[in-house]
Amino acid sequence: MNISAQFLASNKTLLQDKDAGLHAFSSDSNKTLMKEKTLELSAQIAEFQNILYAQQKHKLLIVLQGMDTSGKDGTVRVVFGASNPAGVRSVSFKAPSSVELAHDYLWRIHQQVPAAGELVIFNRSHYEDVLITRVHGWITTEEVKRRYAHINAFERMLSETGTTILKFFLHISKDEQKERLEERLKDPHKHWKFDPQDLTERASWKDYQDAYQAAISATHTEQAPWHIIPANSKTQRNLIIASIVAETLASLNLSYPDPHPEYFKIKVE
Amino acid sequence: MNISAQFLASNKTLLQDKDAGLHAFSSDSNKTLMKEKTLELSAQIAEFQNILYAQQKHKLLIVLQGMDTSGKDGTVRVVFGASNPAGVRSVSFKAPSSVELAHDYLWRIHQQVPAAGELVIFNRSHYEDVLITRVHGWITTEEVKRRYAHINAFERMLSETGTTILKFFLHISKDEQKERLEERLKDPHKHWKFDPQDLTERASWKDYQDAYQAAISATHTEQAPWHIIPANSKTQRNLIIASIVAETLASLNLSYPDPHPEYFKIKVE
Repeated sequence: MNISAQFLASNKTLLQDKDAGLHAFSSDSNKTLMKEKTLELSAQIAEFQNILYAQQKHKLLIVLQGMDTSGKDGTVRVVFGASNPAGVRSVSFKAPSSVELAHDYLWRIHQQVPAAGELVIFNRSHYEDVLITRVHGWITTEEVKRRYAHINAFERMLSETGTTILKFFLHISKDEQKERLEERLKDPHKHWKFDPQDLTERASWKDYQDAYQAAISATHTEQAPWHIIPANSKTQRNLIIASIVAETLASLNLSYPDPHPEYFKIKVE
Repeated sequence: MNISAQFLASNKTLLQDKDAGLHAFSSDSNKTLMKEKTLELSAQIAEFQNILYAQQKHKLLIVLQGMDTSGKDGTVRVVFGASNPAGVRSVSFKAPSSVELAHDYLWRIHQQVPAAGELVIFNRSHYEDVLITRVHGWITTEEVKRRYAHINAFERMLSETGTTILKFFLHISKDEQKERLEERLKDPHKHWKFDPQDLTERASWKDYQDAYQAAISATHTEQAPWHIIPANSKTQRNLIIASIVAETLASLNLSYPDPHPEYFKIKVE
């Protein structure tokens, strides 16, 4: 299921438009079946998350990255929509405020990492600080490299202090983005999702793909692996992400906290 | 539906155990029907909340208060379980940390109020600062009164700057709490929810009811009304709360932001 590992191992160009489409393993599946399976997985995730919350031991951090319209919001809604808001938090990182800019770039990120028992989704993240900054030349190549090292050290620390990290790159093709942007422009109900800035960023498509490829290669670590998700099909995207999240939660061997035998003797007056 | 207003108008003792049970309007209803209706309302709330999020104009703050086991966690899960985590945040206020204690008692509360487009649920709140503190005599009667005034001024400010506030007191009887605590003690899977401190607080049941009654009367304002929810029946509790939240969201006349006519002319390259 770890498609990025597969790409990295095969040593070929990581991000190609042709890999954003439907993958072989689901090409013969039917959409309705995929949706049903995703619904099941989403309910499973909600179940696991209740135990995660009760146990207050593990922390789960999910990072969503991708070009505009790649489906980050939709993933949050569909994959985590069934979860209990008490233990699930979605954090959306926009352009930094002046107070945030007055600190190092990991400052605002660190404040939002999951506490014990929490599942936190980052909708964009510290990766923007090696993506948009690099594409627009706001930081030097040396600074980009230093930041990869900071990020790896930061994620290692989080991992070694009990956080499980999953990073997803929602991979869409340039043509698919065109369709989705046109959809937003055509439908007045979707105008609020459109930002003229999206077109400026789209003009740097190739630079972004290069920046993503470099960042993913430099920060794909054992403790914080990247998963490259073919995301032209929303249905398939949700299914793959839900599967990886559910598998990861299953692998934590979550369990309710140990009972307190002395409690059985207590009488309530 | 505003049961507290009804109680307050009738000028009788606000909180009586007998009022925690099933109310007349639902006594002839069947549990399955109530659950179905709640599910519908919960889906409706999720729909409204998506528009709230898109519009980024209104802010909705929901305060849940009640004795231990009164069902605050269950309310969050059932009523808001279908909502998109991107726009819904649940904040649980525990005993304050030393940093929080070094500030005024509204400091940590203010940090968590909803931003434009957000629906935030407070699981316990600043009301603890006029409840547990009063019951244990940590603050004087004068201080309690000053705090009612602070709280009313704070909530007025929130309201006048665009926040809609709904406050729910989940009203259970002392007998019902006994059953629920016994259930937690009997079931090893529920031991994690039990805190021996709950029994200490239970011993002050009458003082808590008095403290709640005084606090509710002093802070039931037009801009931030209390709703006293009979909560011995979980099914009825969820239905009433979901109804009030859905009605409130409907009354906001939410709509998607205005379209930008100039967007129709944009061509995506």
